[in-house]
Amino acid sequence: MLVNCVAYQNGRKLGDIPAEQISEYVKRPECFVWVALKDPTREELEAMAREFDLHPLAVEDAHNGHQRPKIEEYGDSLFAVLHIPELHGDDIHMAEVSLFVGPNYVLSVRRGTEAGFVAVRERSEREPHLLKHGSGFVFYAIMDNVVDRYFPVVDALEVELEKLEEAIFADDSPRQSIRELYQLKHKLMVMRHAVEPLIEVTHKLYGGRVPQVCVGTQEYFRDIYDHLLRVSQQLDGLRDMVITALSVNLSMITMGTGEITKRLAAYAALVAVPTLIAGVYGMNFKNMPELDWVWGYPVTLAIMVGIDGFLWLRFRKAGWL
Amino acid sequence: MLVNCVAYQNGRKLGDIPAEQISEYVKRPECFVWVALKDPTREELEAMAREFDLHPLAVEDAHNGHQRPKIEEYGDSLFAVLHIPELHGDDIHMAEVSLFVGPNYVLSVRRGTEAGFVAVRERSEREPHLLKHGSGFVFYAIMDNVVDRYFPVVDALEVELEKLEEAIFADDSPRQSIRELYQLKHKLMVMRHAVEPLIEVTHKLYGGRVPQVCVGTQEYFRDIYDHLLRVSQQLDGLRDMVITALSVNLSMITMGTGEITKRLAAYAALVAVPTLIAGVYGMNFKNMPELDWVWGYPVTLAIMVGIDGFLWLRFRKAGWL
Amino acid sequence: MLVNCVAYQNGRKLGDIPAEQISEYVKRPECFVWVALKDPTREELEAMAREFDLHPLAVEDAHNGHQRPKIEEYGDSLFAVLHIPELHGDDIHMAEVSLFVGPNYVLSVRRGTEAGFVAVRERSEREPHLLKHGSGFVFYAIMDNVVDRYFPVVDALEVELEKLEEAIFADDSPRQSIRELYQLKHKLMVMRHAVEPLIEVTHKLYGGRVPQVCVGTQEYFRDIYDHLLRVSQQLDGLRDMVITALSVNLSMITMGTGEITKRLAAYAALVAVPTLIAGVYGMNFKNMPELDWVWGYPVTLAIMVGIDGFLWLRFRKAGWL
Amino acid sequence: MLVNCVAYQNGRKLGDIPAEQISEYVKRPECFVWVALKDPTREELEAMAREFDLHPLAVEDAHNGHQRPKIEEYGDSLFAVLHIPELHGDDIHMAEVSLFVGPNYVLSVRRGTEAGFVAVRERSEREPHLLKHGSGFVFYAIMDNVVDRYFPVVDALEVELEKLEEAIFADDSPRQSIRELYQLKHKLMVMRHAVEPLIEVTHKLYGGRVPQVCVGTQEYFRDIYDHLLRVSQQLDGLRDMVITALSVNLSMITMGTGEITKRLAAYAALVAVPTLIAGVYGMNFKNMPELDWVWGYPVTLAIMVGIDGFLWLRFRKAGWL
Amino acid sequence: MLVNCVAYQNGRKLGDIPAEQISEYVKRPECFVWVALKDPTREELEAMAREFDLHPLAVEDAHNGHQRPKIEEYGDSLFAVLHIPELHGDDIHMAEVSLFVGPNYVLSVRRGTEAGFVAVRERSEREPHLLKHGSGFVFYAIMDNVVDRYFPVVDALEVELEKLEEAIFADDSPRQSIRELYQLKHKLMVMRHAVEPLIEVTHKLYGGRVPQVCVGTQEYFRDIYDHLLRVSQQLDGLRDMVITALSVNLSMITMGTGEITKRLAAYAALVAVPTLIAGVYGMNFKNMPELDWVWGYPVTLAIMVGIDGFLWLRFRKAGWL
Repeated sequence: MLVNCVAYQNGRKLGDIPAEQISEYVKRPECFVWVALKDPTREELEAMAREFDLHPLAVEDAHNGHQRPKIEEYGDSLFAVLHIPELHGDDIHMAEVSLFVGPNYVLSVRRGTEAGFVAVRERSEREPHLLKHGSGFVFYAIMDNVVDRYFPVVDALEVELEKLEEAIFADDSPRQSIRELYQLKHKLMVMRHAVEPLIEVTHKLYGGRVPQVCVGTQEYFRDIYDHLLRVSQQLDGLRDMVITALSVNLSMITMGTGEITKRLAAYAALVAVPTLIAGVYGMNFKNMPELDWVWGYPVTLAIMVGIDGFLWLRFRKAGWL
Repeated sequence: MLVNCVAYQNGRKLGDIPAEQISEYVKRPECFVWVALKDPTREELEAMAREFDLHPLAVEDAHNGHQRPKIEEYGDSLFAVLHIPELHGDDIHMAEVSLFVGPNYVLSVRRGTEAGFVAVRERSEREPHLLKHGSGFVFYAIMDNVVDRYFPVVDALEVELEKLEEAIFADDSPRQSIRELYQLKHKLMVMRHAVEPLIEVTHKLYGGRVPQVCVGTQEYFRDIYDHLLRVSQQLDGLRDMVITALSVNLSMITMGTGEITKRLAAYAALVAVPTLIAGVYGMNFKNMPELDWVWGYPVTLAIMVGIDGFLWLRFRKAGWL
Repeated sequence: MLVNCVAYQNGRKLGDIPAEQISEYVKRPECFVWVALKDPTREELEAMAREFDLHPLAVEDAHNGHQRPKIEEYGDSLFAVLHIPELHGDDIHMAEVSLFVGPNYVLSVRRGTEAGFVAVRERSEREPHLLKHGSGFVFYAIMDNVVDRYFPVVDALEVELEKLEEAIFADDSPRQSIRELYQLKHKLMVMRHAVEPLIEVTHKLYGGRVPQVCVGTQEYFRDIYDHLLRVSQQLDGLRDMVITALSVNLSMITMGTGEITKRLAAYAALVAVPTLIAGVYGMNFKNMPELDWVWGYPVTLAIMVGIDGFLWLRFRKAGWL
Repeated sequence: MLVNCVAYQNGRKLGDIPAEQISEYVKRPECFVWVALKDPTREELEAMAREFDLHPLAVEDAHNGHQRPKIEEYGDSLFAVLHIPELHGDDIHMAEVSLFVGPNYVLSVRRGTEAGFVAVRERSEREPHLLKHGSGFVFYAIMDNVVDRYFPVVDALEVELEKLEEAIFADDSPRQSIRELYQLKHKLMVMRHAVEPLIEVTHKLYGGRVPQVCVGTQEYFRDIYDHLLRVSQQLDGLRDMVITALSVNLSMITMGTGEITKRLAAYAALVAVPTLIAGVYGMNFKNMPELDWVWGYPVTLAIMVGIDGFLWLRFRKAGWL
Repeated sequence: MLVNCVAYQNGRKLGDIPAEQISEYVKRPECFVWVALKDPTREELEAMAREFDLHPLAVEDAHNGHQRPKIEEYGDSLFAVLHIPELHGDDIHMAEVSLFVGPNYVLSVRRGTEAGFVAVRERSEREPHLLKHGSGFVFYAIMDNVVDRYFPVVDALEVELEKLEEAIFADDSPRQSIRELYQLKHKLMVMRHAVEPLIEVTHKLYGGRVPQVCVGTQEYFRDIYDHLLRVSQQLDGLRDMVITALSVNLSMITMGTGEITKRLAAYAALVAVPTLIAGVYGMNFKNMPELDWVWGYPVTLAIMVGIDGFLWLRFRKAGWL
């Protein structure tokens, strides 16, 4: 679906243009075209490929989806794939946007997400002195927008870990904690797979030989690089703590088992000792003077209770009960 | 066994040629020969070595098999070994294909697999504008075909892990889960050994100094590189989750032991307490007034049942039963 | 809040100057301005940005805070973000300082900490032969001061680990030990995130192409680099030992469970064996000669005590009690 | 001990020569000398050092033994140390060979192994067209022979792991399995220490600036490099699986403990319940009508057996017995 | 404390000189001064700094101590810090030596160790052809001496691990084994921190651009580099095995718990079954014919013993006792 198709000149909007005239505008100097597609059909994509003269391999990737995040150079144009994480309840849904960036065009193709780049376009149009940088700046603005969407997701994962930590040390439903730690680890992996591949390739947009379309905006791409490093560091830290939390949880569970064994032992003792005493006075010896005493029975009961009381106090003190 | 031996000119098939005329066709400019062998004898291989003037070390490798995946330059020709995974039930079988690629020839030698490259040949013949690139493009097309065979295998391993995850958290036959996780880890290793060595060498086919036969098709090899990275990332992710799953499984097992101990303790209590009461009234004291009461026996039984009922409810509430 | 705003010439203090005249002093040769802000408002920061002509991206970072530690070049000036750890009881609080360093100015912006750089300023003013190096030396002096604040924190963490080690091997409240090891791991991570990113960027201040403002003071920055490596090595060592301590703790807990089981078994035996004997003499056989013996009862009791005494000694010797 | 001392010219054997004439032959163009020593005394080594003009540090290393595998350049000659693994029963014995390779000599010094390089010499003498390459080819041939001795050892370790895997999952003598896994890990480390250091240095024998004696035989050294990578990959894979096997073994052991606890609980129940019933009918209440029934006793026994039968079936079904 | 202060010319000792004349001798060509300090006061160090014109940052480091091992260039001189391990009983004590090496001087400053470098000085003076290389050779000789002190320490740690391995598999006092493994891990870390930082910096003394004072002795520094790699490899191997030993120990402990549970269960059975039988014959049914039999009691006792004998044999066979 064609969402937007606008021509810009000198940082200012010329106006919406029909898709068929794109190739004309692309040829004009000082002018660039910014097109946004959403879940396009193969026909729509191929029409664009003709207008912009896109490389078939890149078009193929944009059509198939499920790519790794990447930034590739095709001659003087760039092809980028970015992952956009979205929190749906507790799950992370990964949408994908493909970007074709040439000297005077930007084509964004997003899949599987409602959240587009209208905000980016509006902000850019409000800042013509920046938009004058051309397609490179638009590329930056979209990428910046995507990377900014990583932070709330990572923060949500951090909150999730904190909740799990509390549950672990409270020994609350360890079965549930294990499962959620496992799932958290999985989500972290999904996020890492979105972020890690971008770091190296973004580095190439501002250091060393920079692609032509990014010349003049290197400091902006360095800013994105820095944001990616920040996300990556947070993810690494989270991952490290999740692994530790899993091993800590095992320790807590093992300790729990030990404590149950202690209580079991203590209660067993409380029952077994009076049972032994009762057994002794259940013996059938002829000559057992205690049996004939008037107070034999109540005294015996009192001894049983006394011993149990004494044991109870000792077990309490030793922390077994 | 000689499967195919065809000469091409300008991207179009000239026709099948006899093996003995290969060296003639190889000398013609604008012409290249594409030969496919399957499980060849040493004699067949050596005949080819003479026709194509192949390096003895490479021929030795192709004959012995069991090589690491690799791409080596011998003068102006390439020698590549690729692993082809095949799912046989739950097992991964690794077949091997050796490729000799010169400026005007491609020789593929596959071992231990029925699945050949007929589809590659047909697709290539349908696209003469691509086949015109010569042996480099054929090399790409075969390699692309091999790498594409990795994806379904990795996907199958992903499905296997998901099933195992469910079994782990359902606490279903943990003994079985451990064994299958171990075997899954092993399969992932086999896959990694097929993919990892290729990544670096494929990188050299499109970046920096490119071998002569790959000049002009670099973007295609970068596409393969990207696919390999994708497989590798998936494998790394799977490996990471399998390790976590193994440790999670240990936690689940430990927790299971704790739960059994709890139940054991609870049931023991249900039996031990009435046993104690019975012991008390089994004592032989002369003066035990309860023994003479008419309702002594039934009341005692009722007390036993009552205590057990009370304990049962408490244990239930505490989650021990 | 503006803390300080001083102009220096040839290593000597010219005097406090009003913020509005900064841009004048910055233009004078041989002269540099050193300004310190604390928790500035956006307006204050933007005023400074105008006086010093700072890059908007850097100003944005200094305003937002929560940056990764970093050193970035903007033209001939540097922008640095450093984390300052402060121990509040057992917790580590991370304050942040942003530094803007140009050929003839230094602007420090600290957030969330009372501890400023007055000491740095005083020491610098006492050593005019060093202060003559200009803004590069001031940059070094502040950075050196920040890095020196890492050592006491790392030392405190080392002491914390040593205490935990003792608790682990004394088997004292393992539940508490686990929790504190987990939190220690977290603090180490926070410290690493402050230190690691600086190492690489500091390396660039003395080796290879050095930013203009650092020329002539490279050996000082190498000294900082060396200090950072030392902190990093200590942190890595601590991290390694914490992980080992966690696994050792699990072993200790598991062993503890085993020992409880042993004691449980031993005490159970001490009760069960006399109970069996009592059971035997509680049988109602007609013909049980022991029952009629005068010394039957006391001898039986003595045997019970004797057996228990014997078992007690054996269990003691075997280390079960 | 001097094993062999032969001069070669143009790839053909000139004949055995006395050790004292070595320096003469070394000076002749187109001629090279190949000497093999076995467990030499210091005097023998120093005599050789004089004949070949070897560097004292290298001679020192060859004399002391216990070196890391390495290849070092001394001027226009090479000094290499290789480890030769030998399987003695279940143990790996590491022998060492030192190689001095100059433009027209090769001196091999082996220690602690019977297995020499006679086969290498014979194969080389049968292939004069290769031996013509001179000392570089001999160096290759010896190194190739050494590296080929790694494969059967690694294969034996693989077989050992497979046996251990079976034992682990069969739950056969876990104590033994742990010990053997530990020892296997140790052997893998010994092998890695033999292989890893060679990989990087072998790479330098064919890529980039190649030592003079290896010029013209680079493709052969690349072949060795490839073999080393293969061994290394196998070792890494084995190591990874041994670690996993160790953790799997722990899971199996933990699970075994849980199963024992289950059986213990089940058998305890089978005994405790009839004991309770017996206790009840051992009570001394006056008014217990069952006691007077003629069938009271046999019915009670039947009830005991019946309850145990029922419990037995339930425990069986639940997999506790 | 000034230990030694000697001037050398052309590899031969000129004689002891007073500290105040150092700067004179340093100026003479072909002459160099070798000074050894031990635990110097600040004044002594500063006197030396004036004589040799040392950099204040290096002097500061030498005075403070507790540095990371390092080799730094200050102009045409080198500043090195080396750690010297000493075994005090089971503990490793780390002494420190700082070396200032200029074109014609060597100043060694050692702290916290009695063991000096007299042996180095004596060996050097016996080999004037080597000492002629000047300060670079002395630097090598001291460094070589320090690195040689690592080997016996690492060997001692290896012996310690071997003893621990035996204890683990003998199941001897696991509590002690855990503690010692933990401490061994700590010692390995201390050693690594002494060795690792040196490896990279030593590499720079013989490869690439070499500091002026080391020119002509590169092969000697490569030898040290090789020794460091050997130590490092041994330490890595030890570390790897210690980690494995810790996890193996946990498995042994877990297995031990399982075995105790088994024995507990077996002994419980041996007592519980006769108790049940005794309970049965303690019942008060009127009609229990066995009670009236003359042989009832002894037969019952015999049955109890018989059952226990049978159970004992079965448990033995099953390995539970």
